[in-house]
Amino acid sequence: MIIKVLGSAAGGGFPQWNCNCRNCVSVRAGTPGFKARTQSSLAVSRDGENWALFNASPDLRQQLNLTPELWADPKRDHRHSPIKAVVLTNGDVDHIAGLINLREAQAFSVYGTERVLTTIADNSLFHILAEPLVPRITLALNKPTPLSGAGVDLGLTVEAFAVPGKVALYLEDASAGDDFGTQEGDTIGLKVTDTASQHSFFYIPGCSTIDDPLGTRLKGASIVFFDGTLFTDDEMLQQGLMPKTGTRMGHINMSGPEGSIAAFSKLGVGRLIYVHINNSNPALDENSSARKSIESAGWEVGYDGLEVRL
Amino acid sequence: MIIKVLGSAAGGGFPQWNCNCRNCVSVRAGTPGFKARTQSSLAVSRDGENWALFNASPDLRQQLNLTPELWADPKRDHRHSPIKAVVLTNGDVDHIAGLINLREAQAFSVYGTERVLTTIADNSLFHILAEPLVPRITLALNKPTPLSGAGVDLGLTVEAFAVPGKVALYLEDASAGDDFGTQEGDTIGLKVTDTASQHSFFYIPGCSTIDDPLGTRLKGASIVFFDGTLFTDDEMLQQGLMPKTGTRMGHINMSGPEGSIAAFSKLGVGRLIYVHINNSNPALDENSSARKSIESAGWEVGYDGLEVRL
Repeated sequence: MIIKVLGSAAGGGFPQWNCNCRNCVSVRAGTPGFKARTQSSLAVSRDGENWALFNASPDLRQQLNLTPELWADPKRDHRHSPIKAVVLTNGDVDHIAGLINLREAQAFSVYGTERVLTTIADNSLFHILAEPLVPRITLALNKPTPLSGAGVDLGLTVEAFAVPGKVALYLEDASAGDDFGTQEGDTIGLKVTDTASQHSFFYIPGCSTIDDPLGTRLKGASIVFFDGTLFTDDEMLQQGLMPKTGTRMGHINMSGPEGSIAAFSKLGVGRLIYVHINNSNPALDENSSARKSIESAGWEVGYDGLEVRL
Repeated sequence: MIIKVLGSAAGGGFPQWNCNCRNCVSVRAGTPGFKARTQSSLAVSRDGENWALFNASPDLRQQLNLTPELWADPKRDHRHSPIKAVVLTNGDVDHIAGLINLREAQAFSVYGTERVLTTIADNSLFHILAEPLVPRITLALNKPTPLSGAGVDLGLTVEAFAVPGKVALYLEDASAGDDFGTQEGDTIGLKVTDTASQHSFFYIPGCSTIDDPLGTRLKGASIVFFDGTLFTDDEMLQQGLMPKTGTRMGHINMSGPEGSIAAFSKLGVGRLIYVHINNSNPALDENSSARKSIESAGWEVGYDGLEVRL
C-alpha cells in the first residue's frame, strides 16, 4: 500500500488567508523552520495505478497538480484519472468542498456516512458530480467495505467507525444544546486494509477524545494518522485569534494529561503521524519546544508530500 | 485603479485534472509555450490597500498565496484581510465555490444578482460565511452600485448588466426547453469605475453572443476583459473531449464571422484581453496559429498575474 499525505493542515490551511499569528506571518515571510501546508487529505493506492482519496480538500486542484501519480495518464483516453474513489470522514468544508474539483464527467465513487452524503445531496453545487457517473455509496459503521470505482476494484477495504466529535460548523444547530445536534456518523475514523496482504492503517483526522472503545480499537496498530489540530486546548484564545477551544471545535489537543500524546503512550502503535494541523499549532515551528516534545514522544508531524509504504 | 488577473482559465483550470488534450499533456510535461492557469478571477483596487475580488474561483487559496497584495497585513490585527468585497458574475462553480476559502470570521461583502445570491443561500456550505459579518448585497441591473465592505468604501462603482448566456450547469432545468431555465441576471457583465477618476473597464467572463445592445454598451471602452473560453464553437467535439459546443455551454467563440474577434473589430475598444480560457483552446499554445491570429487582431491572451493599471 502507498499512502501519500496530499494535505496536512486543518481547515484554512497554513498560512490561513486572514491570519497574523506568529506561524502564519513566519511562513509567509519564508522563515526557516516553517513549511506551508494545504488542507487535510490522503491519497492511497495498492497498485500505484488506481487511487482512493481520503477527504477532498478545497486545495485539491493544487494538490493534484503537485502529485504526478494522480495525473491523467496520456497513454489512456482523452479523459482519464487514476482517482477511482473518494472516502469522506465528515462533512467539514475542508473535507468535502474539494469534490467540486472532480467535475468534468469523470466516473468515480463517493463514500460517506448517510449524514455526510445527505449534506452533499442537499447542496446543489455538488450536482455537477452527477449520478450514475459518480455514485454515492453509504458507509455502514463497523463493517468492512471494499472500495471500487469506475469499474475498478481498488484492492482496499475500509472499516468506518464513529469517533467522538462534532457536526460540521455550518450544520450546527444552536438550539440543540451542548452537542449542537451532533449525531453518530457525523465524524468517523477509518481502518484501511490492503485486502490482499491484510496490512492496515488508521486514519482519524478529526476526534475530540480518545475514549476506551477507541483506545481498544487502536491498540497495537501499525500506523495511525491522527488529529493534530491543536497543541493545547486554548491556544487560539491565548493567541487572541478566535474565542474557541479545541473542545468546542470537536478536536482533542496534543499535550497534557487529556491530550493525544498521553492517550497513545499506552497503545503500542508502530508509527504515529499527526495530520489536520491548525495554523495556530506551535508544533508547526520545527524549532519549537512543542515540536521537540512531540518528536521525543515518538510522533511525526505530517507534511504535504509525505509518503508511507506499508 | 489596479487590476490583477488572479486566474485566467475557465472552469477546471489549465491543466484540467482529467484531461489528456494536447494542451493539458503539453503543460503537464513543461513544454515551452504552455503556461498553467488557475480559474477565473480578477482582483481590483483603487488605493492598492483595499481590494475587491471579481469572482471567487476554487483556486482562490492558491491565488491568494501567490499574490502578496492580498495577504493579511502583519501590522494589523491578529486577523486581517485586504479583501473587502467579492462581486459575482454568475453562479458557475468556477466563480462562486472559492467563497468557502474566505471563512474564519472575517468581514467582507458579497455582491451578486438575486438569482446568484439565492443559489448561495440554498447551499448550506456557504453558511460558514455568516451574516451579518458577511452581508449579501443584491446587484440591481443597469444601476451604479458603489462597492464597500468591512466598513471600508472601496472607491469603486460597478454597473451590472445582463448579457446573453446560460444558467450554471448544475442548475439547468432539462424540462425547461432550449434555454434550460435561464433567466435575466443569471449571467452579468460589469462596468467597473474608479469613482474619483471616472476611469472604467468592463469585465465579461461569460457571454454567449455580442448582440446590438451589448455592442453599443462596449463601444469605445478603454479596456474589456472578455470571455475567451473557446477558439471555435465545436473544438471540444473535434478533439473528442466532450459532446458540447460553446453555444450549448453559453460561451461565444473567438474566431469566425460570429466570433468575438469579428464582433469587437467594429467597437473601437482600447485594450482587449481574453480571460476564462478553456483548456481545449488552441490559443493557449503560444506558438499556435490561433494565438497569432488573435494577437494580430489586437487581442491579448490573459495570464495569471497580469497586472493592468488604469
